[in-house]
Amino acid sequence: MKNNAETLITTPTPVAERLQRGDLFSEKCPTRDVLKHVTSRWGVLLLVGLLSGTHRFSDLRRKVNGISEKMLAQTLQWLESDGFVERISYPVVPPHVEYRLTPLGQEIGSKVESLADWIETNLPLILEAQKAKER
Amino acid sequence: MKNNAETLITTPTPVAERLQRGDLFSEKCPTRDVLKHVTSRWGVLLLVGLLSGTHRFSDLRRKVNGISEKMLAQTLQWLESDGFVERISYPVVPPHVEYRLTPLGQEIGSKVESLADWIETNLPLILEAQKAKER
Repeated sequence: MKNNAETLITTPTPVAERLQRGDLFSEKCPTRDVLKHVTSRWGVLLLVGLLSGTHRFSDLRRKVNGISEKMLAQTLQWLESDGFVERISYPVVPPHVEYRLTPLGQEIGSKVESLADWIETNLPLILEAQKAKER
Repeated sequence: MKNNAETLITTPTPVAERLQRGDLFSEKCPTRDVLKHVTSRWGVLLLVGLLSGTHRFSDLRRKVNGISEKMLAQTLQWLESDGFVERISYPVVPPHVEYRLTPLGQEIGSKVESLADWIETNLPLILEAQKAKER
């Protein structure tokens, strides 16, 4: 028979595991919100844009073509609240605010960039498949 | 002076390049639709679910907890029209239809799985960041 210490180490503990790790297949898991934030159109563009370094709000607005001021503020807020983006406010007049990726944001930014890169690179094959379907 | 052949090789040809590769930063690029299909809640779950092999419609419905028949059919159609999923219909009575990833679908499925895995694994850190913001 095993002693308690061994049991603790070798027996799987489903509840603890479930708390330690998200589960996308589970309907109420917060992973789904995070996925929504980072793979939304603007989420992707902001993460990829910020991979190159610190930006001011107005820089980001110029860089991410087509984004409205409202959506930029909203998406930055999502990414900030998930711990991916850091907002640095300098106490000067006029106010000066900068945004940069946290270490966590850099990791997920690279993953998202890799997915976006793959789609961009393989777009001709995808468009071919779409055309073949229409025939 | 260069001859024509050299010019063709060395001069960048922006139009051709733009047609050969998608550009997520461009507002009308079809990459955005593809990204939407594969990173939608059900798109992610179906791609990851199909990574393990061929499935029948009813298997997928059971596997992807919470998906409606309508959304399953819709998402499979998106993934099929992008060339990521293959629909195999056997001419038997009653009809027997199976779905499996194409080679292209396996590639993007792995990318999406890697992103989903990262979010699941790092969920505790993300939730911590969210809580810190609320304070």
